Amino acid sequence: MLERNAGRKFNELRPINITNNFLKTTTTSVLVEFGNTKVICAATLDDKPVPFLKNTGRGWLTAEYSMLPASTQTRTARESTRGKVGGRTHEIQRLIGRSLRAVCDLNSFGEKTIYVDCDVIQADGGTRTASITGGFIALAELFKKMKTEEIVKEIPLKDYVSAISVGIIENQILLDLEYAEDSKADVDMNFVMTGSGKFIEVQGTAEQVPFDKKQMDEMVFLAAQGIENLISLQKKIVGNLI
Amino acid sequence: MLERNAGRKFNELRPINITNNFLKTTTTSVLVEFGNTKVICAATLDDKPVPFLKNTGRGWLTAEYSMLPASTQTRTARESTRGKVGGRTHEIQRLIGRSLRAVCDLNSFGEKTIYVDCDVIQADGGTRTASITGGFIALAELFKKMKTEEIVKEIPLKDYVSAISVGIIENQILLDLEYAEDSKADVDMNFVMTGSGKFIEVQGTAEQVPFDKKQMDEMVFLAAQGIENLISLQKKIVGNLI
Amino acid sequence: MLERNAGRKFNELRPINITNNFLKTTTTSVLVEFGNTKVICAATLDDKPVPFLKNTGRGWLTAEYSMLPASTQTRTARESTRGKVGGRTHEIQRLIGRSLRAVCDLNSFGEKTIYVDCDVIQADGGTRTASITGGFIALAELFKKMKTEEIVKEIPLKDYVSAISVGIIENQILLDLEYAEDSKADVDMNFVMTGSGKFIEVQGTAEQVPFDKKQMDEMVFLAAQGIENLISLQKKIVGNLI
Amino acid sequence: MLERNAGRKFNELRPINITNNFLKTTTTSVLVEFGNTKVICAATLDDKPVPFLKNTGRGWLTAEYSMLPASTQTRTARESTRGKVGGRTHEIQRLIGRSLRAVCDLNSFGEKTIYVDCDVIQADGGTRTASITGGFIALAELFKKMKTEEIVKEIPLKDYVSAISVGIIENQILLDLEYAEDSKADVDMNFVMTGSGKFIEVQGTAEQVPFDKKQMDEMVFLAAQGIENLISLQKKIVGNLI
Amino acid sequence: MLERNAGRKFNELRPINITNNFLKTTTTSVLVEFGNTKVICAATLDDKPVPFLKNTGRGWLTAEYSMLPASTQTRTARESTRGKVGGRTHEIQRLIGRSLRAVCDLNSFGEKTIYVDCDVIQADGGTRTASITGGFIALAELFKKMKTEEIVKEIPLKDYVSAISVGIIENQILLDLEYAEDSKADVDMNFVMTGSGKFIEVQGTAEQVPFDKKQMDEMVFLAAQGIENLISLQKKIVGNLI
Amino acid sequence: MLERNAGRKFNELRPINITNNFLKTTTTSVLVEFGNTKVICAATLDDKPVPFLKNTGRGWLTAEYSMLPASTQTRTARESTRGKVGGRTHEIQRLIGRSLRAVCDLNSFGEKTIYVDCDVIQADGGTRTASITGGFIALAELFKKMKTEEIVKEIPLKDYVSAISVGIIENQILLDLEYAEDSKADVDMNFVMTGSGKFIEVQGTAEQVPFDKKQMDEMVFLAAQGIENLISLQKKIVGNLI
Repeated sequence: MLERNAGRKFNELRPINITNNFLKTTTTSVLVEFGNTKVICAATLDDKPVPFLKNTGRGWLTAEYSMLPASTQTRTARESTRGKVGGRTHEIQRLIGRSLRAVCDLNSFGEKTIYVDCDVIQADGGTRTASITGGFIALAELFKKMKTEEIVKEIPLKDYVSAISVGIIENQILLDLEYAEDSKADVDMNFVMTGSGKFIEVQGTAEQVPFDKKQMDEMVFLAAQGIENLISLQKKIVGNLI
Repeated sequence: MLERNAGRKFNELRPINITNNFLKTTTTSVLVEFGNTKVICAATLDDKPVPFLKNTGRGWLTAEYSMLPASTQTRTARESTRGKVGGRTHEIQRLIGRSLRAVCDLNSFGEKTIYVDCDVIQADGGTRTASITGGFIALAELFKKMKTEEIVKEIPLKDYVSAISVGIIENQILLDLEYAEDSKADVDMNFVMTGSGKFIEVQGTAEQVPFDKKQMDEMVFLAAQGIENLISLQKKIVGNLI
Repeated sequence: MLERNAGRKFNELRPINITNNFLKTTTTSVLVEFGNTKVICAATLDDKPVPFLKNTGRGWLTAEYSMLPASTQTRTARESTRGKVGGRTHEIQRLIGRSLRAVCDLNSFGEKTIYVDCDVIQADGGTRTASITGGFIALAELFKKMKTEEIVKEIPLKDYVSAISVGIIENQILLDLEYAEDSKADVDMNFVMTGSGKFIEVQGTAEQVPFDKKQMDEMVFLAAQGIENLISLQKKIVGNLI
Repeated sequence: MLERNAGRKFNELRPINITNNFLKTTTTSVLVEFGNTKVICAATLDDKPVPFLKNTGRGWLTAEYSMLPASTQTRTARESTRGKVGGRTHEIQRLIGRSLRAVCDLNSFGEKTIYVDCDVIQADGGTRTASITGGFIALAELFKKMKTEEIVKEIPLKDYVSAISVGIIENQILLDLEYAEDSKADVDMNFVMTGSGKFIEVQGTAEQVPFDKKQMDEMVFLAAQGIENLISLQKKIVGNLI
Repeated sequence: MLERNAGRKFNELRPINITNNFLKTTTTSVLVEFGNTKVICAATLDDKPVPFLKNTGRGWLTAEYSMLPASTQTRTARESTRGKVGGRTHEIQRLIGRSLRAVCDLNSFGEKTIYVDCDVIQADGGTRTASITGGFIALAELFKKMKTEEIVKEIPLKDYVSAISVGIIENQILLDLEYAEDSKADVDMNFVMTGSGKFIEVQGTAEQVPFDKKQMDEMVFLAAQGIENLISLQKKIVGNLI
Repeated sequence: MLERNAGRKFNELRPINITNNFLKTTTTSVLVEFGNTKVICAATLDDKPVPFLKNTGRGWLTAEYSMLPASTQTRTARESTRGKVGGRTHEIQRLIGRSLRAVCDLNSFGEKTIYVDCDVIQADGGTRTASITGGFIALAELFKKMKTEEIVKEIPLKDYVSAISVGIIENQILLDLEYAEDSKADVDMNFVMTGSGKFIEVQGTAEQVPFDKKQMDEMVFLAAQGIENLISLQKKIVGNLI
C-alpha cells in the first residue's frame, strides 16, 4: 500500500481553500488552493464580441491559463518571451473553456466576451482541475454582479461544475494527485462533472501502462465522490444559484 | 431511430481503406480512409535528437497534424500563413504523439527522432482517429525498415494501437461519427485502445448535454468493438509483429 | 548524350495526368501529376475582399503553395511549426498568383477573393509549373460554377495559361526537369505562357554556369512546344471557354 | 493642498509589506506590497549561460516582468496570447535588470544565468519600483543560498538597492504615487538608489507639463528619503550582507 | 584630464549638421549629423487613427527607430529578419515618441496618425538624441505643410525640443558622448529639454559606478547648455514657430 | 513616341552615381544611385557559418534587402514592426543573393558567411537592379580587403555582375524604368548579366499584356547594352580583378 503525504487516504482530497474576492483590482477573483497548488482565477466581462461571433447576437466565454515562471521547482520559461503559447497550455485552456461553457447560457448577455483567467502561482499537481473548480466560482460571482447591474435577467448557469484528477500508481488508484504522485503515475485521468453528477469532460491518458475497464470504473467512482465534495464547497461560497 | 448515411448501423464503422506505400518519396507512408475522411500518414526517422533529450541516450516520437485548406467544405486558413499552430491542432497532434509513444520502446534506437506526419486531404469527421490508426501502420513499417537496416535489433513495439470516435445524438449512441453527425452531437468521445483491448486515451466532451455513467459504459462497449476491427485490419497490413 | 529516365527524349514532357473534381469537400479541385510530381490544386471563392482592395469594388486572386513534410525524400519541416512562410514558398506562391491573375478579369465579380491552394503531395521537380497548370483548371472550374450560380455573367478569363520548366545539364537542353535532373542542372528556367503562345512569366536562373542568347532561344523554343501540349490538355478538361 | 488616500502625507510611503519565502516551489521568492500593489519576485539560478556570454567565463542577471491579466482594473491582454512582449514591458524589465546588475559582481559565479522574475498580482502604481525593491531581496536570498552551497565564496553584492517613484500633480510633489495619482500626474519620476545614497537610475518623464531644475531637486530629495526607508527594511529581512 | 577626439572640450558638442528636405520621396525629411552619427528623420501623416484612439476625435504621434545593419562596426542583425523588435529599440522609440508628443497639441488635426521615422545610417553614439533633435525638425516641417494645406489652423507646437547626452568617464563629466566614450562611461545620462529650458525626459543610468547629487547637478548644467545650442540651430532651420 | 523624364532616350540609363566607402562604420560600403533611386550596399564578413553548411568547410553569401519607411512616396510599413519579412522582400533578397553567389567561389574562405545588405534610402524604380550592381562593388571591395588580410589567397570572383530592368509601355520598349514608368508598364523584365555578356538571371513578368518572342529579343538587346555600361563603371571603381 502506497503511503501518501500527510497521511492522506487514497480517496481523500487535499485540503481545499478558496479565498473569494482575492484581488482588489478585479471584482470577481478567487484564490483556489488544492494543497500546495495555488491558482488565481478571475472572471472579466468584455463588451466586445469574439471575432467569429460578430453579428450573431451571441456571447462567448474564453479561458486563459498560465503558470508563473517561479510556480514550478525548475523555472518555467515565460510563453510571452518565447513568443508563443505552447501545446500543453493550449490544451488546458481549451479544456477550462469548454468545461465552463457547458454550464452557461451564452445567449443571455448579447455579443460580449467573458474572460476567465487562471494564473498558477504555485504548482503541485492538479492545476487544471483547480482552475476549473475556482474558475466556476469567479464566473458565478461575475454573473451575480451582472444580474445586480441588470446586464442579465437571470443568472445564466445551468449547473455547477468542478473537476478532479484520479491516477494509477503501481496498480493503486488515488484521488487528486499531487506533483510527486503525478510524475510517477502510469495513468492520469481528469474528470469534469456537474452538480447533478453527470460528465462534462473525461480525459484519461496512460502515460506508461494501459488500463482496463474495471480500473476505469473505479476511477470514475472515486472522481464522483471527490467532485461531490468540491461542489458542496462551491455552493457554500456562491450560494444556491440554480 | 436516427438514420445514418449509406444505411449504416449505429455500431458500424464506415468503409475503411488503407493504401500502404502511398508516396514514392517517403519509404513509409499510408493513405488511410474512414469513409470520406482521407489522411496521409508518414513516418520518418531523423538522426538528430529533440533538444530536451540531448545527451540522455533516449529517442523520441513526435507527431504533426495538419489539414489542407481545401480539405473542409469552408476553406480552412493555412496555419503557416497565420504564423502559428492553433489550439485544436496542438491538441490533436499531442494526442497522436502520446498514443503512438505509449506502444513504443523509445530507448531502443538511440538519440533519434521519429516524425509521424498526418496530413488531412479530405475531412469528414474522425480525422484524429484515422490519423492514429494510420499513423501506427506507417510507424510499424518504419520500424520494419529500421530492423532490416539493423538500426534496431527487434521491432520496438509493445502492442498495436487504433482509435475510434463514439458520439451521442438525440440520446442515441453511434460509432465512428462522420462530419454531419459530429456537428450535431451532444457528446463526442474518442477512444485509443491497444490490440489487447486496453485503454491508452479516453477523451469525452459533452458539447451540449452532459452524459451519465450508463451512457459512458455503452460508448466504451461500442468503441471496443470498432477498435477490434481496426486492429485486425492493421495486422493484415503490417503482419504479426508483437 | 544524357539519358533520361524511362527513355524520355530531351523535348518530351513526363506523363501528365489530371484528375478533375479530386476532393469531395471542395467543389473545384484537381489532382495534377507531372510524372511523380503530384499537386492538389483547389480554387475557393471567399466573400470577403483582401484588405487593400476594401471599398474599391475590385476582386482579387491569391495563391498559396505548400509541401507536405513527406512529399520530399528528406522530410521538409512544416512552415506552420516554424512559425513563418519561407522565402522559396513566398517566391512560388507569388509566381502562381501573378500567372493566374494575368488571364483573369478581376473586376467582374465584386469585392471577393479567390484562393487557389496548391498543396504538393509528392515532389519530383516542377512543382511550381504543375501548380500553375493545375491551378488554372481549378480556377476555370470555379468560374464555370460562378457563372452557373450567376455570380458572374461571363467566365472572366482572357486566355488559358500553363507553365513548364526547361534546364541545361552538361550543355544539353531538356524539357520538364524531374528532381534528379533539376538538382544537377546548370541553368533552370521556368516559362508561363498563354493559349495564344505569349509569355506571362519568364524566370531563368544560372545556378552554376551562365548561359548565352542562343541557349535562351533554344529553351524558349522547347518551352513553347511543351506548353502547347499542356494547353490542349486543359482544353479537353475545361472545354473551350475563351 | 491635495489630499491623499488614507491621510497619507506628501512625503510618506504607502504601507510596505514584504513576505519572504512566499512560494514553496522556489527557494527564493518574495511577495512585496507597496500599499495595494502586490508583486511576486523570485530569483532562480540557471546553469546555462546567456548566448552572448558563452565562453567568456562571465555570468549574467536577466529580469522578466509581467502583469496578470486581472491585476489591473481593466483586464490587461496577455502578452503570450498576443505573441510578443510589448514596449512598456521591455522597458520595465530592462530597468529592473540594469538596476540589479549594477550592485552585483557577475564574474563570481561562472557562466551561469540568474533570472529575477517579477510578476504583478495586483497593480496600483509603482509596480516597477516594488519589483526592484523586492527583486533585490530575492536576489540576496539566492546569493546567501549559493554561498551555503559553496557556488560562490562571498556574497557577490556591492551594495543594497531600492527604487521609488515621485510625481508632480497640480504643482505639488508627492512620494510613491498610487495609480489614481499616477494617472493624473504631470510628471512621473523613478529613482533607483543604493544603500550608500547614490543614484543607479534616474528616469523622469513629463507626460503633460515640463518641469524645472528646482522641482527636480525637490523630487530627488523626497526620493532619497523614501529609499532610505526601503533599504532599512531590506536590511532587516536579508541581514547586513555588505 | 581625458583627451577627446578632434581636440573637443568636455562641454563641447560635436559638429552638428542638418540637411533639410533630404529625401525627394517624402516631403518632410531631415538628415541629422552629430559628428559621425547620421540619422534620417522623416515625418509622415497617415489619415488612419491608431486603434486605441478610434472614435475619440484625437490624433497621435508614433515614432519608429531602426539601425541599418551596416551602421555599426560589428554588423547589427536586422530586426525584421529576427521577427521582432528588440528591447533597446522599443525603449528608444518610446522615448522619441514621448518627447515629441510632449510639445504637440494632438487634438488639433483629428483622428490621424503622425509617424516619425528615425533610421540610423551611421552610429557613433547619441543616436537617440540625434533622432529627437532631428525628428522635431521633420515634425515642424510637416506641421508647416499641414498648415499650408489647411489641415490645421495653427501649427500645433507648444515648444521646441532637443536632446543631448552627458556621461561620466573616470570621474570627468563630458557632453555629447561619441561611441568610443560611451562604451567606457560609468554613467550615461540623456536629457530632453524644451526651448524654454525645462525638462521633458531625464534618463540616467549608472552602468558601472553610481553617481551622487553633485555629479547629477553638473550633468544637468552641461546638458542645458548643449540643448540651448541645438535649439538655436532648430530655430534657424524651421523658423520661429511658437 | 513616349517622352521620358529629363529627355532620356528609350535606350538610355539614368545618371548612375556610385560613392565608394560611403560609411565610416563599415569598411566596405557603397552608395549607389540610379537617378533618384538610392541604395546603401554594404558587405560584411561574419566568422560563423550558416547553419546548413556547418561542418562542410564551405562558406556562404546571403543578401538582405530593406526599404526605409520614408523611401517611398506613401510610407512603407516597417517589416520589423509587422514581425515578418514580406513576400516581395524575400523575392528580391533571394535574387540578389543568387546573382552574387553565381560569380563567387564560396569554397575559398572556409565556413564563414558574407552578408550583403542593401538598404533603400530613396526608391524611384529599379531598387533590385541597383542593389545587385552596387552589392557587387561592396563585395569586390570586401574580397580585396580579405586578400590584404590574407583570409583568401586570390580574389574569389569568377566574373563581374550587374543588373538592369527593361519594360514595355504602350508597346514601346524602355531601358531602366523609373517608378512613374514602372507603375504603368505592361511588362517588367529584369536582367542580371556578367562581364562576359552571359545571363545569370532573367525575370520577366507581364503584369497586364503578355509579350511575344520578338519583344523579348528586343528587351534582351537593350539590357545587354545597359549592363555593358554598368560593368565598365564597376571596373573603374574596383579595378580589373578577374
